[in-house]
Amino acid sequence: MYRTINNGELRRIHIGQEVIMSGWVQRSRDLGGMTFVDLRDRYGITQLVFNLDINSELCHKARNLGREFVIQIKGKVIARASVNKEMLTGDVEVEVTEMNILNKSKVPPFTIEDQTDGGDELRMKYRYLDIRRNPIKNNILLRAKISSETRKYLNDNGFCEVETPYLIKSTPEGARDFVVPSRMNQGEFYALPQSPQTFKQLLMVGGIDKYYQIVKCFRDEDLRADRQPEFTQIDCEMAFVEQEDILNMFEGLIRHLLKEIKNINIGEFPKMTYDDAIRLYGSDKPDIRFDMRFVEMNHVCQNNDFSVFDSAELVVGINVKGGASFSRKQIDKIIDFIKTPQVGGGGLIYCKYNHDGSLKSSVDKFFSEEDLNRWIDVCKSSRGDLIFIMAGSERKTRKALSTLRLHVAELLGLRNPEIFAPLWVVDFPLLEWDEETNRYHAMHHPFTSPKPSHISKLDSNPGEIRANAYDLVLNGNEIGGGSIRIHDKELQSLMFQHLGFTESQAKAQFGFLMEAFEYGAPPHGGIAFGFDRLCALLGGQEGIRDFIPFPKNNSGRDVMLDAPSKIDKDQLNELGLDNK
Amino acid sequence: MYRTINNGELRRIHIGQEVIMSGWVQRSRDLGGMTFVDLRDRYGITQLVFNLDINSELCHKARNLGREFVIQIKGKVIARASVNKEMLTGDVEVEVTEMNILNKSKVPPFTIEDQTDGGDELRMKYRYLDIRRNPIKNNILLRAKISSETRKYLNDNGFCEVETPYLIKSTPEGARDFVVPSRMNQGEFYALPQSPQTFKQLLMVGGIDKYYQIVKCFRDEDLRADRQPEFTQIDCEMAFVEQEDILNMFEGLIRHLLKEIKNINIGEFPKMTYDDAIRLYGSDKPDIRFDMRFVEMNHVCQNNDFSVFDSAELVVGINVKGGASFSRKQIDKIIDFIKTPQVGGGGLIYCKYNHDGSLKSSVDKFFSEEDLNRWIDVCKSSRGDLIFIMAGSERKTRKALSTLRLHVAELLGLRNPEIFAPLWVVDFPLLEWDEETNRYHAMHHPFTSPKPSHISKLDSNPGEIRANAYDLVLNGNEIGGGSIRIHDKELQSLMFQHLGFTESQAKAQFGFLMEAFEYGAPPHGGIAFGFDRLCALLGGQEGIRDFIPFPKNNSGRDVMLDAPSKIDKDQLNELGLDNK
Repeated sequence: MYRTINNGELRRIHIGQEVIMSGWVQRSRDLGGMTFVDLRDRYGITQLVFNLDINSELCHKARNLGREFVIQIKGKVIARASVNKEMLTGDVEVEVTEMNILNKSKVPPFTIEDQTDGGDELRMKYRYLDIRRNPIKNNILLRAKISSETRKYLNDNGFCEVETPYLIKSTPEGARDFVVPSRMNQGEFYALPQSPQTFKQLLMVGGIDKYYQIVKCFRDEDLRADRQPEFTQIDCEMAFVEQEDILNMFEGLIRHLLKEIKNINIGEFPKMTYDDAIRLYGSDKPDIRFDMRFVEMNHVCQNNDFSVFDSAELVVGINVKGGASFSRKQIDKIIDFIKTPQVGGGGLIYCKYNHDGSLKSSVDKFFSEEDLNRWIDVCKSSRGDLIFIMAGSERKTRKALSTLRLHVAELLGLRNPEIFAPLWVVDFPLLEWDEETNRYHAMHHPFTSPKPSHISKLDSNPGEIRANAYDLVLNGNEIGGGSIRIHDKELQSLMFQHLGFTESQAKAQFGFLMEAFEYGAPPHGGIAFGFDRLCALLGGQEGIRDFIPFPKNNSGRDVMLDAPSKIDKDQLNELGLDNK
Repeated sequence: MYRTINNGELRRIHIGQEVIMSGWVQRSRDLGGMTFVDLRDRYGITQLVFNLDINSELCHKARNLGREFVIQIKGKVIARASVNKEMLTGDVEVEVTEMNILNKSKVPPFTIEDQTDGGDELRMKYRYLDIRRNPIKNNILLRAKISSETRKYLNDNGFCEVETPYLIKSTPEGARDFVVPSRMNQGEFYALPQSPQTFKQLLMVGGIDKYYQIVKCFRDEDLRADRQPEFTQIDCEMAFVEQEDILNMFEGLIRHLLKEIKNINIGEFPKMTYDDAIRLYGSDKPDIRFDMRFVEMNHVCQNNDFSVFDSAELVVGINVKGGASFSRKQIDKIIDFIKTPQVGGGGLIYCKYNHDGSLKSSVDKFFSEEDLNRWIDVCKSSRGDLIFIMAGSERKTRKALSTLRLHVAELLGLRNPEIFAPLWVVDFPLLEWDEETNRYHAMHHPFTSPKPSHISKLDSNPGEIRANAYDLVLNGNEIGGGSIRIHDKELQSLMFQHLGFTESQAKAQFGFLMEAFEYGAPPHGGIAFGFDRLCALLGGQEGIRDFIPFPKNNSGRDVMLDAPSKIDKDQLNELGLDNK
């Protein structure tokens, strides 16, 4: 037996017991006649002590242990002379009587410590060593806990987990598919699923009225930072439900997770329409941990001979609580940030409402104190606040101000990762105009149901149609999205037409789904959560990579495996393929 | 709201309540002034009643409902005039006051009944309709329950579920990989995992000492009946363990599943060495629900001038309890079966030990009653039994007799799917000789640890080396297999050498694992269970296909999706590939 107890368990009550323990050498130090070794495993660290006077051979052996050696020891639990309050096992240590070196280790390429000296690429290449570090190990354990609690909630609510296939059919709509050449059917390809969307709808047709799956999905996109070619979804669908039923059920899921994982109780989630989110926050995923809503200011800003405002489609501001204390230098830095290409803001006007009641703006030349007082009024500013104002075309200005809003919140410490502010954004547009292809695309996907009263606008005003589609937003991140689906084959055909599918294209790609709808499809809808992001947020971070056990880099490579890689010519031949 | 209660829930206590229900029309019948509709959903069937006298319009509407129409009704729960004891909801019915047709249905291509008229291909093409049938629906629910109980057991035992990647690196060893061309790295390919073997070993190196995952795996093999190109494994690994620890832990898993799923309590699982299994049952996965062990009979059969026996390497028999009652015709059919090419038995000798004590064999010409009495002795036969004997080369004969044994057991009704007889088969050979390539292959995989005392035989007698490898066998099916792994890089190198890898091949394919072993790999081992088979067995069947929600056919095709299929020329171009 390699161990009778693990390295996180020993307490005062164990004093006097004989134990066998195994693990890795975290560090060792010699103090006169004693050698102390910190032994580590998944559960914690235990201090081992070797006494030169009692067993000099063993003590010498201990002195030659390197970092990350794997050892097994036998010994007796004793009280520590100096208790370590920082460690759970800090009351005791183990006086070693036997030691067995199970494996040696080269010096690791980076330190196995909470704060490591290893850079990103090095940590990825030796991910198995990175996983020994508490921050990564804890993320992996957290992820397992979140998936387990997710399953618990959904199982308790009558959902059935169903495995859908990975080798499916390629559909050119949506993102690019990864494809898998078929050897048995040469010239033909499977595709890896971008999501189990059609399968979950088929399960609804099949009568499995509450489905979920925690499942890998695949998208062959040009990767941006923090995008992975394979990612995990909590995929869910329900039949015989209306939008409200779905929102209630999955609000319950997130509430359950916040309670079980973070011990936070959250009441009913607020709801906001897409149009309001854009109007008030310039974003369809507003961070509502803090206020700073947009204030439209055309009426108090225009017609003052200040051309920046006068020529703008929209003049819009935010009131920054306590922002009057920003120095000139801080404000200049903010203005520089706004002008960077990734933000693309034209410029920024500010107005300070000082503590003494005086007003100071960057456009004092153009606006009288009376004018500025009207700004203060519409922005509901108090003494000590600051107003930031942007102007320009509606879309671009809202977007830039949204970025500014988050940036300022960051500076003011308002984006505390331990505070959670979920929000439903509802009534998304059904279609969005695509400049490139010069036609409307499904904003969500082609199976999303329009609001019934809006269907008549399909010909006259497609951009105005709102859908029974919703996103769950957490702290400014979209963590889930879904919709009520179309379950009527006529309406689905109509949608395909409006999305530019010919009848034969629709049939080739979604024929099985259209056919399924001929045999009594029930009303249904669902949602899918980005599991990687959810784990990261519950882990107090925004980056997903350290919450994925074996992630790929930004070029889609696994640098540990060195994949993708060349394959044998024979293998290619068997598949009936040639590299160009 | 589409429903206030589902179709499986109504009982006497609900009488008098107003309910809203939704579901599919299972059947409808008109009896004079009444129309009865069976409304079905995932949970059961409720009888609806429409009264022509009370509401003739509604009753006429009900009379026009077709099979599988989706409807929503409002009504009042009333007691049934004639109770139906067969149905859980058979005490009551719902007198309908309002009805809403949610969707129509064409007449389904096969009947949605427990016993359907649909053939296999038709059922696969319309799998979403097949899933509405109880037998398939119940399999899907069973599968979800088994995976949920598996996770519960493993979580309760401190295991951490870790998701390993699907886009990995191709390794020519083992079965054929499915590959995924990389667009971003043209000319290079990912592979889909045949199992997460190397990842789970890396997790052990990383200190996650108890890992599991319920995970899809992929093998591009020529399909035999009941093989799927994608299949699901319960994949597990533990560090700081010996073989006994693993057997105990996973015996516990199967015991837990048998208890929770079948309400069967099973004690300690028997263990048998591979050599014994072959000797006593001619198989490394013996079905021990019944006895019929092999009896080696060379000493009582040879040297009697019966050349079939005299020239044989092995003469081996089984005693069939009660087999003396087999008719001549039955025995002839068994002999025919034995001679079919898939069994490949040369022939079959029998000896009946009749109830009156007389003996009758198919070789009375060659053997005296005294000879036959010695057979009876060594086979421990009783009156009424029958001995079957086969002779020939050792391997082939054992294999054929093993098939005969199962066949006879089937005929005698000894393979009751509701009886469960698990068995550990241990001490598998490390290597097996491959006639085709004329060299030794790893029987399990190249990471399997030989028994330490056998390592010295690597040069002298590789075929005799036994490994710390084990299978869990249930009712004659291998449901799981695993081993203690090599954790020492020197031994791993030595193994690669003996498996015919050059150093550079080993490095190209498993370099990351070999490198990981340089940094303190702990002793570890694991097991993987075939989840599809496990579900089938717990569902009382041996075929896996109806336990997979969306299976592929024997040509690896999904006939519902029509996948694999051609892809766009553009898509191929983007991947830098040409069809030959």
